[in-house]
Amino acid sequence: MIDIRSLVLVVNCGSSSVKFGVFAGTGREPLLSALAENLGQPESRLVVKEKGEKTEISLDGGSHDVALQKLLGILDQKGWLSSVVAVGHRMVHGGERFTASTLVTDEILREMDALSNLAPLHNPANILGVRTAMAALPNVPHAAVFDTAFHTTMPQAAFTYAVPQDCYRNLGVRRYGFHGTSHRFVAAEAIELLGLDPNDHGLVIAHLGNGASATAVLNGKSVDTSMGFTPLEGLVMGTRSGDIDPGALFHIAREDGLTIDELDTLLNRKSGLLGLSGLSNDCRTLENAEKEGHEGAKLALDVFVHRLARYIGGLATSLDRLDAVIFTGGIGENSATMRQRTIDRLAVLGLKLDAETNGQMFGGRCGVITSKDSKAAAAVIATNEEWMIAHDTLEAVATSTAA
Amino acid sequence: MIDIRSLVLVVNCGSSSVKFGVFAGTGREPLLSALAENLGQPESRLVVKEKGEKTEISLDGGSHDVALQKLLGILDQKGWLSSVVAVGHRMVHGGERFTASTLVTDEILREMDALSNLAPLHNPANILGVRTAMAALPNVPHAAVFDTAFHTTMPQAAFTYAVPQDCYRNLGVRRYGFHGTSHRFVAAEAIELLGLDPNDHGLVIAHLGNGASATAVLNGKSVDTSMGFTPLEGLVMGTRSGDIDPGALFHIAREDGLTIDELDTLLNRKSGLLGLSGLSNDCRTLENAEKEGHEGAKLALDVFVHRLARYIGGLATSLDRLDAVIFTGGIGENSATMRQRTIDRLAVLGLKLDAETNGQMFGGRCGVITSKDSKAAAAVIATNEEWMIAHDTLEAVATSTAA
Ligand SMILES: Nc1ncnc2c1ncn2[C@@H]1O[C@H](COP(=O)(O)OP(=O)(O)O)[C@@H](O)[C@H]1O
Ligand SMILES: Nc1ncnc2c1ncn2[C@@H]1O[C@H](COP(=O)(O)OP(=O)(O)O)[C@@H](O)[C@H]1O
Repeated sequence: MIDIRSLVLVVNCGSSSVKFGVFAGTGREPLLSALAENLGQPESRLVVKEKGEKTEISLDGGSHDVALQKLLGILDQKGWLSSVVAVGHRMVHGGERFTASTLVTDEILREMDALSNLAPLHNPANILGVRTAMAALPNVPHAAVFDTAFHTTMPQAAFTYAVPQDCYRNLGVRRYGFHGTSHRFVAAEAIELLGLDPNDHGLVIAHLGNGASATAVLNGKSVDTSMGFTPLEGLVMGTRSGDIDPGALFHIAREDGLTIDELDTLLNRKSGLLGLSGLSNDCRTLENAEKEGHEGAKLALDVFVHRLARYIGGLATSLDRLDAVIFTGGIGENSATMRQRTIDRLAVLGLKLDAETNGQMFGGRCGVITSKDSKAAAAVIATNEEWMIAHDTLEAVATSTAA
Repeated sequence: MIDIRSLVLVVNCGSSSVKFGVFAGTGREPLLSALAENLGQPESRLVVKEKGEKTEISLDGGSHDVALQKLLGILDQKGWLSSVVAVGHRMVHGGERFTASTLVTDEILREMDALSNLAPLHNPANILGVRTAMAALPNVPHAAVFDTAFHTTMPQAAFTYAVPQDCYRNLGVRRYGFHGTSHRFVAAEAIELLGLDPNDHGLVIAHLGNGASATAVLNGKSVDTSMGFTPLEGLVMGTRSGDIDPGALFHIAREDGLTIDELDTLLNRKSGLLGLSGLSNDCRTLENAEKEGHEGAKLALDVFVHRLARYIGGLATSLDRLDAVIFTGGIGENSATMRQRTIDRLAVLGLKLDAETNGQMFGGRCGVITSKDSKAAAAVIATNEEWMIAHDTLEAVATSTAA
């Protein structure tokens, strides 16, 4: 048990933004959180949230280091800075090298650098965050928590693409999977909620946010997942296409004369719910528009549900038995409609919705949403990646201190 | 009932090859079949097969028209030519326009031409076959039977990719599905074999040959399928990759400096079982190599099975109830091992193999391969696309004569 005198700072560093969270003890909500945006641009700013109150601070065009210094200044004013005992960093890609969270050393930093070619958009920014924070807080341990680590238990048949295996050996092309910290947290929560045997269970977890992925969890281990070499594969997402016939890409590229970079932008930024609806990447907006008769919104939500149910059925074949389907992420935690439409397509797996309890789960409420006679359960569980990072960080520190 | 005095010639025309079949009456085996290969090259030849005997005839560098004239000469010698009452043509792509087999007219030919941009490798060759045969046999009706037609019943949510819908409206980018003639034939056979209600059943059919696809059939209609805009998407095939993260393609293209055409060749011709094993695209060869300890062969077969089971589970979510999984095509009809490995992964759908009957199904034998207490059945059914084309052709003729 940790009290307010030992705080963990959680850092999630992107190319032009950083998210911070300050966690104390076993408390699952951050004492304080902050989001730095538009970094390196004139309008850069830090929005700090504490006990529901928001304060906005200009960063005067400053970048990541300025944002971190400003945040540390705030912690100092509160008398918290000296209580920060560790910093936990979210890393998108740990490749095959990182199978668990780890304390950062110079050697580890070099290894993380070497993985940057696998995630050129994400890892360099993550690493910048680590280096900046290590410079500012050199006397506390820093830990790296990887989005991919939970999926390193996938069997080879699940992670291998049917391309010449030189692509794997020389270019690292395989399924890695992402959202691992969320799937791991939710899997552990599901065992508690449903009273499952930690060594004998089968789950499919659907993390449905702006990014979306589903994972088959067998006895606590990821055995298959919908995201692939990058977070583009799989489900329909806010602006990402998920699966598409490669032959369709070749056709689009030839007919419209697109380069690889333009195709990349098309699929990562202009597709998904946004591309389908022609309206918005936001599920809630689309649900409202659908009610008012917007056809694009209806199509977007229908395709989202079709693909999601197809994946849940597909991933379940990596289990001996399906105990439960778990919904998490912004859409999974809040949209009773999308859960209902998905479960209505899971009759072959024996799922039967309880419409009443389903309607009650939103805004962080967790529980079972299937009827008593449903062959497998479905449940809503609120994810908490940031707390999981704080937790892993303390565990990595404890392990290294013990050794 | 048709006797030997009314024959149907079935033509399947590729860019450098043509397959012929001559069908009589309700007989499901062709009286005669022939394969013309290497057309337009010095070594072009026609191999004719009748009652198990093969005869090889040089075409002296001739092309499609020479092959057809040679075949018609053989039919003439046998006194069969005047009995040919119709010609049936296999067409790969019928787009959204062709929802059923149809008699060919000039107007229909123009419409088929207009679809060639959707299948630039296949349709022009198919159309060439139609024009050549119409010139040689101008006095009999010609029918076109489309690989895509069976799948035109798919709901919009199943055929829509999550890309900007301009790609659909302007470029025709959607899931079409292929192997439809085989899936349709096998679905009808399955209803007979299993005694199902034609208006109330749910099947997943796995057509596993050099090309491979799986289809969900609800009450006689295709409701979802694994192949997409082109026959590249979906299952692992002989030389085709099936599904892959588009992000992995972008990575390969950038790292190896590949063009779109080179990527296309990589995924269509160098991937699948061949790319995975580094040995062969042929399932039987790989099964033998695996027994002798070849690791690439084992990986190829494992990935094939993993993907296939994942698709069967995924497609089943488009059904209210799964009555049976049907195996067909060269691998599906002959490989007890691959069927067993697949069914072993379908426990969540309630499938239980009967190893003994499974071992007995090969070389055209059809039957149920699951145990009495299996919740859903699995069965082997031999496909017969060519006979189906002959059948459709006679039906199209009968319908037009009646009208
Ligand atoms: N009540 C709601 N009904 C439907 N969708 C919701 C609701 N609340 C949030 N969402 C959706 O959740 C998504 C954002 O999920 P979130 O997990 O916050 O995203 P991120 O992946 O960025 O963390 C958006 O599409 C949003 O519309
Ligand atoms: N006894 C067998 N065991 C395993 N695989 C077999 C067997 N017989 C045929 N096959 C496989 O079937 C595939 C060819 O299937 P087929 O339906 O004839 O192909 P196509 O799609 O070209 O019509 C090959 O991979 C071949 O190895």
